[in-house]
Amino acid sequence: MTAEQVVARGSSVITAMETHDIRFPTSRELDGSDAMNPDPDYSAAYVVLRDGDDEGHGFAFTIGRGNDVQTAAIKALEPYVLGKSVDDLGALYRDMVGDSQLRWLGPEKGVMHMAISAVVNALWDLKAKREGKPVWLLLSEMSPEEIVGLVDFRYLSDALTREEALAILRAAEPGRAERIERLKESGYPAYTTSPGWLGYSDDKLRRLCKEAIQDGFTQIKLKVGADLDDDVRRMRIAREVCGPGFRIAVDANQRWDVGAAVAWVKALAEFDPWWVEEPTSPDDVLGHATIAREIAPVKVATGEHVQNRVIFKQLLQAGAISYLQLDAARVAGVNENIAILLLAAKFGVPVCPHAGGVGLCELVQHLSMFDYVAVSGSMDDRVIEYVDHLHEHFVTPVVIENGAYRTPLAPGFSATMHAESIADYSFPDGPVWRSA
Amino acid sequence: MTAEQVVARGSSVITAMETHDIRFPTSRELDGSDAMNPDPDYSAAYVVLRDGDDEGHGFAFTIGRGNDVQTAAIKALEPYVLGKSVDDLGALYRDMVGDSQLRWLGPEKGVMHMAISAVVNALWDLKAKREGKPVWLLLSEMSPEEIVGLVDFRYLSDALTREEALAILRAAEPGRAERIERLKESGYPAYTTSPGWLGYSDDKLRRLCKEAIQDGFTQIKLKVGADLDDDVRRMRIAREVCGPGFRIAVDANQRWDVGAAVAWVKALAEFDPWWVEEPTSPDDVLGHATIAREIAPVKVATGEHVQNRVIFKQLLQAGAISYLQLDAARVAGVNENIAILLLAAKFGVPVCPHAGGVGLCELVQHLSMFDYVAVSGSMDDRVIEYVDHLHEHFVTPVVIENGAYRTPLAPGFSATMHAESIADYSFPDGPVWRSA
Repeated sequence: MTAEQVVARGSSVITAMETHDIRFPTSRELDGSDAMNPDPDYSAAYVVLRDGDDEGHGFAFTIGRGNDVQTAAIKALEPYVLGKSVDDLGALYRDMVGDSQLRWLGPEKGVMHMAISAVVNALWDLKAKREGKPVWLLLSEMSPEEIVGLVDFRYLSDALTREEALAILRAAEPGRAERIERLKESGYPAYTTSPGWLGYSDDKLRRLCKEAIQDGFTQIKLKVGADLDDDVRRMRIAREVCGPGFRIAVDANQRWDVGAAVAWVKALAEFDPWWVEEPTSPDDVLGHATIAREIAPVKVATGEHVQNRVIFKQLLQAGAISYLQLDAARVAGVNENIAILLLAAKFGVPVCPHAGGVGLCELVQHLSMFDYVAVSGSMDDRVIEYVDHLHEHFVTPVVIENGAYRTPLAPGFSATMHAESIADYSFPDGPVWRSA
Repeated sequence: MTAEQVVARGSSVITAMETHDIRFPTSRELDGSDAMNPDPDYSAAYVVLRDGDDEGHGFAFTIGRGNDVQTAAIKALEPYVLGKSVDDLGALYRDMVGDSQLRWLGPEKGVMHMAISAVVNALWDLKAKREGKPVWLLLSEMSPEEIVGLVDFRYLSDALTREEALAILRAAEPGRAERIERLKESGYPAYTTSPGWLGYSDDKLRRLCKEAIQDGFTQIKLKVGADLDDDVRRMRIAREVCGPGFRIAVDANQRWDVGAAVAWVKALAEFDPWWVEEPTSPDDVLGHATIAREIAPVKVATGEHVQNRVIFKQLLQAGAISYLQLDAARVAGVNENIAILLLAAKFGVPVCPHAGGVGLCELVQHLSMFDYVAVSGSMDDRVIEYVDHLHEHFVTPVVIENGAYRTPLAPGFSATMHAESIADYSFPDGPVWRSA
């Protein structure tokens, strides 16, 4: 369908929102266990928007308790989308994040911001399905002017102006078609966190490291931060199995204060960690900057809990991160992530998205592929996290081949969960929880 | 009652939590209007904890829509307090903010953190009522060791260690009794925001400035940031009425980007603004630092939307603020505010709390008075905000005399609302809203 045809459907508007509190009992297997999150039940506060026969699906990812609050926050946004069309998602996004009364609950952070994320992403899923394209391609075919029209530049102008953003996008216009073809041929590189959960035995770690290499991954990640002796032993095993030069990142999930982070990473330095992820509070820009200076050449990466573009702006201004790990569903969805991709491009920092959880792999592949085609124009030194959890619940799950995400071609945001999964895992009344 | 007697009541635990969505239709009068919040309906997500015949009251302040979400977040904390006693509020607070699943919804920010604030403050109200003391006095009579036991030092140690905190508290031990007496005699200085709401006419501004001076205030505050010409005219009026040297603060409520803040404040400089409050995003530590450098000698103040101690730590480390405006109900209540008072004392920055809204004046007076007795030991260059809204709904409202808060002596946190107010303003079913 062309843009003209979409506009011709003018009167089509969103007529219904439904929400679901969906929880998977992952704590039973210690999948997803790390130094701060010993027993997560991976969950989705899930939203479906309806516009005639079209549906848009989106969700916020949580790890269990509180998913009901997150779902209620999404429901509170119903008045902001009912009766609206997906024609101008820049304006609709800015209306939601700018609403003065909701804004008081943040501003632009936490439960209410994640709720906006779920709704914004659902709007993009709906728009992309109506246009018959995957989200990454829909975005990649927009003009630079259309793309900056999706962004809220408030609080960014000391680091990135609208004009600078336009210049970045225009510089990437040549070669878009070739990059789209390359994506369709060979996908986008991934790294895997599956070997490294804290709850796994040394034997399981060793086996999964070997499998990661056999599967074509060129980077893995280990969770660290609970016990230094354990971390030294696990890093030694991983380095032995993977060999010198193989990229092994470590992830502390915010466990440390600044001084402890420096000391701990130095104690692991002999095993050549590639980056240390979330060494301390995601709010601590100055702390990350100090850590980055002290542990070089080990690099700092963060982002999965960074609340919005204002914190990312400062992490970049302060030289605090070498890799920016955006999350698809913590900031306000596609629109705010476009601002974050532009900031990263301005500062020359590679984006390596956070994924895993429920459906985050499915979402972020679109953002990285859009970045490659239309923003940074590069896949160099960039990888998307991959975790092999829960993909079976999605209608069009990610496909990993030779350590790379295969490029999704189905219309939408890859966000749609099977109806049976929604029913089975609904909390607390679905059969999985009733029987527990 | 002595501490021993409290412990002797050992088996007493919290047996019930009730919540209320309370909203006042303040938007009808433009009270509380500012550059970012044109039509607030001042609201409280209100919680009552019961322990036998004792009650603890607390609330999160919001400005209308979303108060239902905030109330649901408080209700989600019920399992964390039922069956618990108020004997060790340090441990209970740390258990709530440290819960890994709830933490994912922040961490320590936004709706879930404000919910913890409401519950923590209700626990302190309950504890203080049981001990027959106002919260400020209960805290002021604790030993330095007991006080640091209430704090979560995680993420603070690069700026403030437990030992440094103890040293600050021990240095303030001499003179506690004299300062308690001085408080009881003359209260704590206030400043008033009542003249300066954007929605008021010039005549009303002029009249309220005169009244503020007559009432003994030595500082007022004007809202700015919507229109520069209006701000110049209103500042000129206020300066004419108040005279040279009188402290007139201005408050932009986050309206500006960094560059715009600098330009706007410079345009108002001829009227000698005392501080500029919330010039930009509350998340923008580096932006505040830049503004502070550029607009000196005008000072920067912020805090009412600062989400937690980690952002306050950085604002202090970066030299970004000359006044720290803590809020009683945005960070995690009394406990996190003790950490913030200690940080401010360490950096030598005066604390001038944010108040107004619903019941915030009632709460913050206790924190400033505790600061005076046991932390900073000083009232110099310190004022508590005062706004004359909605106090009539509280059982023990603040009392202002000669431009100062009179020291509250009733047991508790001054947080209890009249039962009739709770009933009348409950949303959407109370009579005030049913008739609207």
